[in-house]
This record gives sequence, C-alpha cells and structure tokens, in this order.
Amino acid sequence: MTATVIDRIGLLVTNRPELGEGPLGVLRDAALVVEDGRVKEVTRAGVAGDANVDAGGRCVIPGFVDSHTHLVFAGDRSEEFAARMAGRPYAAGGIRVTTEATRAASTEELRTLTRTRRWEGLRAGVTEVEIKSGYGLDPESERRCCQVAKEFTNEVTFLGAHVVPAEYEGQADAYLDLVRGEMLTACRPFARWIDAFCEEGAFDADQCRAVLEAGREAGLGLRLHGNQLRPGPGVRLAVEMGAASVDHCTHLTDDDVAALAGGETVATFLPAADFSTRQPYPDARRVIDAGATVAIATNCNPGSSYTTSMGFCLALAVRDLHMTMEEALQAATRGGALALRRDDLGRLEPDSRADFVILDAPSYSHLVYRPGMPLVAETWVEGRRAWPE
Amino acid sequence: MTATVIDRIGLLVTNRPELGEGPLGVLRDAALVVEDGRVKEVTRAGVAGDANVDAGGRCVIPGFVDSHTHLVFAGDRSEEFAARMAGRPYAAGGIRVTTEATRAASTEELRTLTRTRRWEGLRAGVTEVEIKSGYGLDPESERRCCQVAKEFTNEVTFLGAHVVPAEYEGQADAYLDLVRGEMLTACRPFARWIDAFCEEGAFDADQCRAVLEAGREAGLGLRLHGNQLRPGPGVRLAVEMGAASVDHCTHLTDDDVAALAGGETVATFLPAADFSTRQPYPDARRVIDAGATVAIATNCNPGSSYTTSMGFCLALAVRDLHMTMEEALQAATRGGALALRRDDLGRLEPDSRADFVILDAPSYSHLVYRPGMPLVAETWVEGRRAWPE
Repeated sequence: MTATVIDRIGLLVTNRPELGEGPLGVLRDAALVVEDGRVKEVTRAGVAGDANVDAGGRCVIPGFVDSHTHLVFAGDRSEEFAARMAGRPYAAGGIRVTTEATRAASTEELRTLTRTRRWEGLRAGVTEVEIKSGYGLDPESERRCCQVAKEFTNEVTFLGAHVVPAEYEGQADAYLDLVRGEMLTACRPFARWIDAFCEEGAFDADQCRAVLEAGREAGLGLRLHGNQLRPGPGVRLAVEMGAASVDHCTHLTDDDVAALAGGETVATFLPAADFSTRQPYPDARRVIDAGATVAIATNCNPGSSYTTSMGFCLALAVRDLHMTMEEALQAATRGGALALRRDDLGRLEPDSRADFVILDAPSYSHLVYRPGMPLVAETWVEGRRAWPE
Repeated sequence: MTATVIDRIGLLVTNRPELGEGPLGVLRDAALVVEDGRVKEVTRAGVAGDANVDAGGRCVIPGFVDSHTHLVFAGDRSEEFAARMAGRPYAAGGIRVTTEATRAASTEELRTLTRTRRWEGLRAGVTEVEIKSGYGLDPESERRCCQVAKEFTNEVTFLGAHVVPAEYEGQADAYLDLVRGEMLTACRPFARWIDAFCEEGAFDADQCRAVLEAGREAGLGLRLHGNQLRPGPGVRLAVEMGAASVDHCTHLTDDDVAALAGGETVATFLPAADFSTRQPYPDARRVIDAGATVAIATNCNPGSSYTTSMGFCLALAVRDLHMTMEEALQAATRGGALALRRDDLGRLEPDSRADFVILDAPSYSHLVYRPGMPLVAETWVEGRRAWPE
C-alpha cells in the first residue's frame, strides 16, 4: 500500500511530548505520513513528498477515544428527560423502559440504530468506541446486544449487571447468578470487558466483586461504574481489583482520590451525564493534581446522556470540571486509550494507528472556545477517511 | 410562483396556540404549504397535494431568530479564552484586541469572515439574525462594519457605544460626542437599531441614555446591553425608554423584574456568554414567572461567546436557566422575533415568513435531550432551502 500524506497541518497534536512542544507534543506546520493504517512519519510540512490531503493550516488531533458508551438500545426517553428538567414527576422506569424496547427490537433494528449512532460519533471525531450491553438483561437479549456491538468495535463490554430487570425484582442475587452463569457464557464470545454498576439502587460492592471475578475467570478485562450519585465503594473496589477504568467518579472521598493516584485504574469522567441529570460535576482538579490518570467519555445512552459529541464533553470538562484545554483534550484521546489499555490509540507517532481528526479550526482550543459548534471537518480511521464518507 | 409542500411532518411547532396543542401550538402529522416566501397553509399530512419535500415524520420548528450577535469582526481570542478558563492572568485588552484586528482588516476580509459565520448560523437553524457593529469604534470602521452587516440582514444595530477605544482612554464623553455625531451619521444608512453597553467599565446610565436618544432622533429603534456582570441601571433604563430588548439580564433586582414585567421590553438571555465567562446564569424562572417576555440569543462574538449554535443555547436555557423545553424553544424563535419587533417571524401560520427548520429528530425536545449534537437537517428561509445549499 502506498503512503498517504496529510500536509500543511497548521497545528498537529501528537500527544507525545518528545515529538513537540508542551504536554501535547504540539508541532506547527507539520505533515503526517500514513501507510497500512498506521502512522509512518511525523514531519515538517512540505517535505514529505506528494500531498494527498491539504489540511490548509488547520489543526489535526488524535481521534477521540470514547471509552464509555451504551450505543445498542431501542426506544426514546425524551419525555422522561423533559419531565426531569422541568422538575415534574415522571412514572417511567428508567433503564427498564429501554430494556423493554431493546428486547422487543429485532437484531436488524438494533444494528440500524447502532450504525446511526456510530456514524454520529464518527462525525464528531470518535475514531474508537467502547460499547456496552446492559439493556437486554436476559441471556439471549444481552447476547444479541454484544453481537451487534461487536460489529462496530472490538471494545465490547458485557454489562449484564446494569440493573436488576423487572422479572427479578427483589431477587438481585438470583439475577446475578444468571449474569455470572448463562449470560456471561452467551456474551463471552463477543466481549473484551465486563462491567457492573456499583451504586445504591443497582449493585453493592460484594455483588460487583463477584461479577467482576466471574468475568476475569472468563478472560475479560474489568471496568466499573462507580460513585455517580453519591460516595460509595466503587472507586476503591475498581482500583483494588485492577480494573482498567472506573467511570463517573462524581462523588469522591480523600481515600478514593488516594486510591486512584496509587493504582492502575483510569478515572473516567462523564460530564454530559452530569449535565443531563443536573448532578454536580466531579472535582477533576483534585483527581488530576493527585496524579491519577483521567479520561473523558460521552456515556452515550438514552436515559442520562444521549450525546455522541466529545466536543461537548470537552467544553464541560474545561468550563465545569476546571480542566485545562490540554488536560481535557488529552483525557478525550490518550486518556480514553489508556482506559481501554490500548497503546496503539490516542497518539500520533510512528506505528500508532492512523486515527486522527482534521478540525475546522486553527487550534484544538476552539473545541471549547466555540461550544456547541460542529468543528470536525474530517475523521480518519486506520489511515482512511471515515467521515464524510 | 407555485407552492412548495413540506409533507409528512411528524411534529410541527407553529408557535400559534390556536393552531394546535399547548403553548407551542403543536400539530402531529402535518404539512406546510409555502408560496412566495410565505406560509400559505398549515394542514394535515397527505391532503395538500403533491409533496415537494418529505419530512419523513421528523419535527419541524420555526427558524431560530438570533436577535443578538456581533458577527462582523476579525481576529482570534482563543488564547485569552484558554487563559481565562485556566484561571491564568492574561494581558490582552479584550474588545480592544478585536477592534485593532477589525480596523486592520479589509472590507472584503470582513465580508468573508461574516459570510462564514452567517453560514454557520444557517447550518444551526438560524433563519434571521441581528448583527451589531461595535468593533470599529471610529466613524469609518463602524460604517464599514454596518455596511457589511447589512449585506446579511436588515436587522443591523449600530453599537458605537460598545467600549471607549484606546485613543479616547479617559475621555468617554468626548468619544460619545463622536458616537452621537459623525459616527451615527455614517452608520445610519445601514442600521435599524442603536445599542449601548450599560455596565461598569463601559458606559453609565446617563451616557447610554444620551446615545439612545440620539439614535431615536435619527429614527433608529433602541436596544441595550444591561446587567451582565453585576446589578445596574440598564434594565430599568431600557424599559423606561421603551427599548425593544435589554440583553444579558444576568443580575436582576426585584425592581428590574417588576420593570420587565410591566414594560414592553423583551428580556434577552445570552446563556452561552455566561457559559464562556463562567458567570452565574440568569434566574430566568423569576423573569418568566413575573410575566415578562423573554428571548434567547447566541451573542456570537470573539471574546465572551464564540458560538452560533442556538441548540447549545437552548440546552443551557433548560439545564441551567431552568426554562422548560417549550419556554426555551419559544424564546429562541418567537421571543427573538419580538426582541426585533418582527411580527412576521418566529411563527408558522398563514402569511408568516416561511422560515423553518427540519430537525433530525422526532421532537424539538431532542435539541436539549441530545446536547452538542448537530440536529438541524435543513434550514429554510423565505420558502427556499438555505442549508444545505
């Protein structure tokens, strides 16, 4: 395969400090040479031979790695959302409403819905995505969700332990037997990860531990939803078990922060969920300043965060989580890659996967300076332009 | 001219309660017939004859009326923005930096920059836009800005009284003599409105009153920036003088709210500016519940709100200003029209201007339910599709 040259890049973010200036390893007037889906060379503009793509002085960043999504679902919960925003009571059953719609949908319908959402993510600059199950909640429905997810990414997460479905009301342990048994077996062929929702109203620490242990025995990597709505044991459990990521991290004690700083687990913030549920935002400064590794993801789901826009998440991360532009961009690219334990993603250096975004802007700071604007001009995945098609 | 029929509209917002359900006058399974740039008929799907456009069950809303923008400027202040977000001091002179760049730009450059921003607004569903001068601040530069603005809208606002330019430092009254004299004369042929920035650090109530009076004598309508950074006399002055709109309204006393409720002046909120400056959000509930008319606008400008996304402003209005979806949508459409005293805009009823947006969504609530997403599928202005071209 011949090389493709992206030339006349006004500002190139490599996320490799050794290659350029500052923590993002920024180069001015640069070119990117890609071959066989990988970065071959990062060099100066105009020296790389024939340009195939003229970036025209615009900014190029590593593609966003959206390490937390629930893209496979059916149904619409905008009425519930509107009621919540207006402070009106709403009788809907939250996740269970989506579970009903998802179970009722055909596999082909789920595939079509997921394809549209994945396309929206590409349009927003997402070059790799994690997708969780968790709206099937019976072995066959979870299997279908994992199977569909696997058609769009290798980063599939089995989340049978999302909530207790209606038919197991009051029998959480019996449900978790199913999760760790037949359901895990059905989903295992499609999944790389196992996840659980550690929160009052979902599952407690012992229950989550048992689920993650079963997943580990089956060869899956570990992730956890923790500390979303109140302080709890999630963060410490995740770190203790060596999970790749613990997600939400909105309510943290000093012990939680110390655990994150001392462990191997990435703290993943999901600010669009805090936006859409009017929760307080996490204190990202405390976590970063303690030395922990952080990521930002969309948490795209129909209940608490129905967005695929990493740009929107970045704007919130800077404005409301008080991250710097550089921290936020890194968290949304390299941070996401680390949350998925992927060393080939989230950087633009020789041999990393050629996943990048050409912005309609001279600098990545416009992602926050221009909130709500669709600033992605082109999204490239493995050296090919994936959006616009 | 023959009629164009937009058929199979799943949900049509008319903003005329008599035509449908609720405060937005919503119709389901509707069609819109437009002719000669006007709405000819609002009817049921399938009965209007040959469809020219199939909305495919999607939602159609009146076009956004962005009643407060500063689209004519040159230069970039993303570094200043990043510094502010990071809490770092930054030596830049705010508006004066933009004034320098704007004065230095050729008219053709200003035209090109403004065209791009207006195109971004069309892409975001903005079918009518107000554009202020205010970065020229000398007679010839202000005239050029008004002239360029007039190429894009009839709703041009002369804002010579934005701040005191560097060359008049310490001589505000001498500068205002210029504003009310030569500068007003130069700008008058292009402008419909006059505006002033009533705030500590800009101009006080007496100064603003003198500017607005001069504008009124010259035949211009009145607008005012007021109560953005702290309580002040702006809102009461605007109401007392019968201004069409007073914009920002972030810091309001009980007297201010009572004045708005008893007057003819629209209270225009600019939530993206509060977002980008980390100001508190206005208490929109108090203003609405008192009975005042409200609008939402982008305030697109390079210093405090560099966005043309009305969808982003809507999401903030609901999440952080605690408006309902319906209030926010109405404020961004009909409210903007009222802030410009335009009865032909902001509604879809017979004889109103055929300005509307086809959303990539089944309901307008998705504009908030899906924050950060580009949900505008098509923008129609005066009965023609303006975006995509």
